[in-house]
Amino acid sequence: MPLPRELFAATLLLASAFPVLCHGATQWRTPKTATEAQINVAIVITEHANVIDFSGPAEVFQDASVAIRDGDKEVMASPFRVYTVGESRKPVKVGSGLTVVPEYTFDDAPPAQIVVVGAQMGSPRMLEWVGKVGRDAKTDVLMSVCTGAFKLAAAGLLDGKHATTHHDFFDKFAKEHPKVTLDRGARFVQSDGRIFTAGGLTSGVDLALHIVSLYYGKDVALQTAKYMEYTPAASSGLAKGVARGDGH
Amino acid sequence: MPLPRELFAATLLLASAFPVLCHGATQWRTPKTATEAQINVAIVITEHANVIDFSGPAEVFQDASVAIRDGDKEVMASPFRVYTVGESRKPVKVGSGLTVVPEYTFDDAPPAQIVVVGAQMGSPRMLEWVGKVGRDAKTDVLMSVCTGAFKLAAAGLLDGKHATTHHDFFDKFAKEHPKVTLDRGARFVQSDGRIFTAGGLTSGVDLALHIVSLYYGKDVALQTAKYMEYTPAASSGLAKGVARGDGH
Repeated sequence: MPLPRELFAATLLLASAFPVLCHGATQWRTPKTATEAQINVAIVITEHANVIDFSGPAEVFQDASVAIRDGDKEVMASPFRVYTVGESRKPVKVGSGLTVVPEYTFDDAPPAQIVVVGAQMGSPRMLEWVGKVGRDAKTDVLMSVCTGAFKLAAAGLLDGKHATTHHDFFDKFAKEHPKVTLDRGARFVQSDGRIFTAGGLTSGVDLALHIVSLYYGKDVALQTAKYMEYTPAASSGLAKGVARGDGH
Repeated sequence: MPLPRELFAATLLLASAFPVLCHGATQWRTPKTATEAQINVAIVITEHANVIDFSGPAEVFQDASVAIRDGDKEVMASPFRVYTVGESRKPVKVGSGLTVVPEYTFDDAPPAQIVVVGAQMGSPRMLEWVGKVGRDAKTDVLMSVCTGAFKLAAAGLLDGKHATTHHDFFDKFAKEHPKVTLDRGARFVQSDGRIFTAGGLTSGVDLALHIVSLYYGKDVALQTAKYMEYTPAASSGLAKGVARGDGH
């Protein structure tokens, strides 16, 4: 299990040592202070949220470890702080028999550098919030998983761009969002400087690993996959050299 | 997304058409009535439960679809009913920034044919419950994921048997449980007629797919993996012919 998040906390002194890589046309923000180096990851949760869509990326960000200073020691810990955001703090029935209590609401969620939108029911308030963060220059990444792409499209964030979604929903997506270029069968697609869309369910794990690699490089992403005993998809650019638990 | 569970419900008339395969030395129970054909899957949740450990298998069981009769129509739906079981119905802080509300407690959970124990804090009450279901002839499957194997071992269920766990914990497991034969690097291990142990984190997805294949055959398991855009591990016996979203 990864080290407790507390070890990361305010004692982080090596913030400036974390490279935040430039990807595509957008120059991602480089953390300069300890506070900035804690990268907030907001997981959007409304009714019927698909469980693996949000828990796959949540696990990746939780497990990604980098060397940080804890007092006078150097320890491995996650720079990502994952939290859930919903309509309210009332328990939400999500998929697969689970009930989740959102930590924050769309009204009081702390600013997040990374926002994850999986398949879910959504709401007008959720679309408004997603649209806002998708257009906010302070957002590094807004990523959809599965039919979460429909929410990004409904928020007007994908017109004129490439995107993908779950394979059962290609035709529906193409019909409902003719201004979006649908990449059928891509594991994930970078739609613009900050928006990414993944295919169905477990595709979100590969996209999240890709995001980790953009922040901290391929070695950290590969180490995360290894910890999770996950073999990245061939198209993720991370497939080589990762054991899957088929023989360490 | 899979069809609503309600479609399965009490209208199920084709129960006897579901083959429950024999595996190893134990003859698994064959459902004879509609009620029996609904296979309960209990996910054990205590503090710090690792999110992908339980949500991976939960998603697999939720997404596994077989043809069932709904009135005079035949529809595809999941025969598995997934629910969570914890100390109480109070919200539980699990991993990756999530808070989950258990649906049942160890005192009132319905009997489950399948029980999933991922990495988590646990408690004496939880170990007692896990020990009881692990010895109950009415339990088809008790499966651990990741360091959940330590809980099965602590409940006295693995002595004299083979097992595996997360690769970072091999040495600790071997030291603490010398009566268990540790299979280092196996994706998952069948420990006896009803007990299975998986490796770390995403290994649970492969073990759950394997369990689906034991109930309903490889085609249903492969279809579930395809729906999840997941490529089964080579050692799962399901690896061939499953697309991963790298090109459907």
